[in-house]
Amino acid sequence: MTFFEKLGNQVFSKQTFLCVGLDPVWEKMPQHLPRTQQGLLEFLLNIVKQTKDYAAAYKPNFAYFEALGISGLEVLQELIKEITPEVSVIGDAKRGDVGHSAQMYARAVFESFGCDAVTVSPYLGQDALRPFFEYRDRGVFVLCLTSNRGADDFQLPDLHLHVAKKVQQWNVSGNVGLVVGATFPEKIKAIREITGQMPFLIPGVGTQGGDLEKTLLYADDGSKLPYLINASRSVIYASPREDFAKQAGIAAKQLRDRINSLRSSL
Amino acid sequence: MTFFEKLGNQVFSKQTFLCVGLDPVWEKMPQHLPRTQQGLLEFLLNIVKQTKDYAAAYKPNFAYFEALGISGLEVLQELIKEITPEVSVIGDAKRGDVGHSAQMYARAVFESFGCDAVTVSPYLGQDALRPFFEYRDRGVFVLCLTSNRGADDFQLPDLHLHVAKKVQQWNVSGNVGLVVGATFPEKIKAIREITGQMPFLIPGVGTQGGDLEKTLLYADDGSKLPYLINASRSVIYASPREDFAKQAGIAAKQLRDRINSLRSSL
Repeated sequence: MTFFEKLGNQVFSKQTFLCVGLDPVWEKMPQHLPRTQQGLLEFLLNIVKQTKDYAAAYKPNFAYFEALGISGLEVLQELIKEITPEVSVIGDAKRGDVGHSAQMYARAVFESFGCDAVTVSPYLGQDALRPFFEYRDRGVFVLCLTSNRGADDFQLPDLHLHVAKKVQQWNVSGNVGLVVGATFPEKIKAIREITGQMPFLIPGVGTQGGDLEKTLLYADDGSKLPYLINASRSVIYASPREDFAKQAGIAAKQLRDRINSLRSSL
Repeated sequence: MTFFEKLGNQVFSKQTFLCVGLDPVWEKMPQHLPRTQQGLLEFLLNIVKQTKDYAAAYKPNFAYFEALGISGLEVLQELIKEITPEVSVIGDAKRGDVGHSAQMYARAVFESFGCDAVTVSPYLGQDALRPFFEYRDRGVFVLCLTSNRGADDFQLPDLHLHVAKKVQQWNVSGNVGLVVGATFPEKIKAIREITGQMPFLIPGVGTQGGDLEKTLLYADDGSKLPYLINASRSVIYASPREDFAKQAGIAAKQLRDRINSLRSSL
């Protein structure tokens, strides 16, 4: 089964387009938990336990684990092992390097960390992406239009469209999607027109203030195409107290329901 | 002292523009060394010992260490500790993520791994680079024009020039350089014109076949500007036998001498 078939099963059987981003920082973790490997893992596993009925996938961002050093990466590895195969894990690593190095990054993310999918950066072109694409049972989300202000520096006005066109051509195994930010919802329309039925991973609806309704309008093509609306901080830091996991579950359920409600009136 | 002052001291006191890339793979390591953490560290430290008189910096590529899992990253951390502060280490990590995540990557590379400098990707724009730039005592090489074939997909014909212009504007603390591949030497001329006295990190002269003479002609501005010519495989895999370190030293010395000889006739 391909990654996107597996993802589609999750999305339509659980009726959720929600992806929960796992971006842990000591400063925001509930105060009663110890700032240790064990405390971090406990924090994340409890979030997962309470949100997994509402999440089609989890997206740990490698940056937050790397910032904690080797011990942070040990937690990441353990976390992924605990989540998969029940729910898919997208390793948000945004890797991008020349061909042979890209092969090493693909090996790291898919084999050493055991991710089902990954995010990658297109700046170095096709040979930097191909080693990821060659894992035909895994998913690859290529950065197209990101949700941050800096997207305006190079991605806009045209580069993101070139990226969408090229990636569409390179997607010979049907295992490639795009990262498209919700902070520029009108742009999603043009990208959808270029890429047809390509799954999108969409950050930026939470703290970053992207327009969820417009995003769904342009991302959804009315078919059984899976795509993911990502929320990180608004879910995992829903409460700084001992009820953090329960509150994360409530936040995840609310966002899932809001997405479904908006979708049903598209 | 800024990173580039420190680098300039190394370059002009040791009379070497050579950067040695450390990209270890089991398949190419000398056959007598065990495929273990200890064997890997022994391989790399012996290479460093025999090449450090000819190297202005070392550039371990994170991909190759990540591909070996947590134990590979432990070797990377130990390796960097052993090389610095005697010689500078450029963490070839090519990271690039939205602002807060970029801050985490900067913390990982500079604080957790202790690198003196880093390579980063510009696709996400200024807010993805700023957290790295804010480490004013460290160096940041932004990918501009890479040495691989895929550079033709997005970086050429114009994007690399936009990147050079923007990065030049953003370099308010004088701690930023560019990665410019030797496989497109004529392009280096235009980039040099845009960026003035900005240090370049130049891969692609070894196995990838970039033209060293033309590269030096366009990269060197005749002043005491430090820049780095990187060689990885041609140095560290100079011999697969027990004399690997000695041969790496000879290969490094030869390349250093060739660079100096070509520079003196510019």
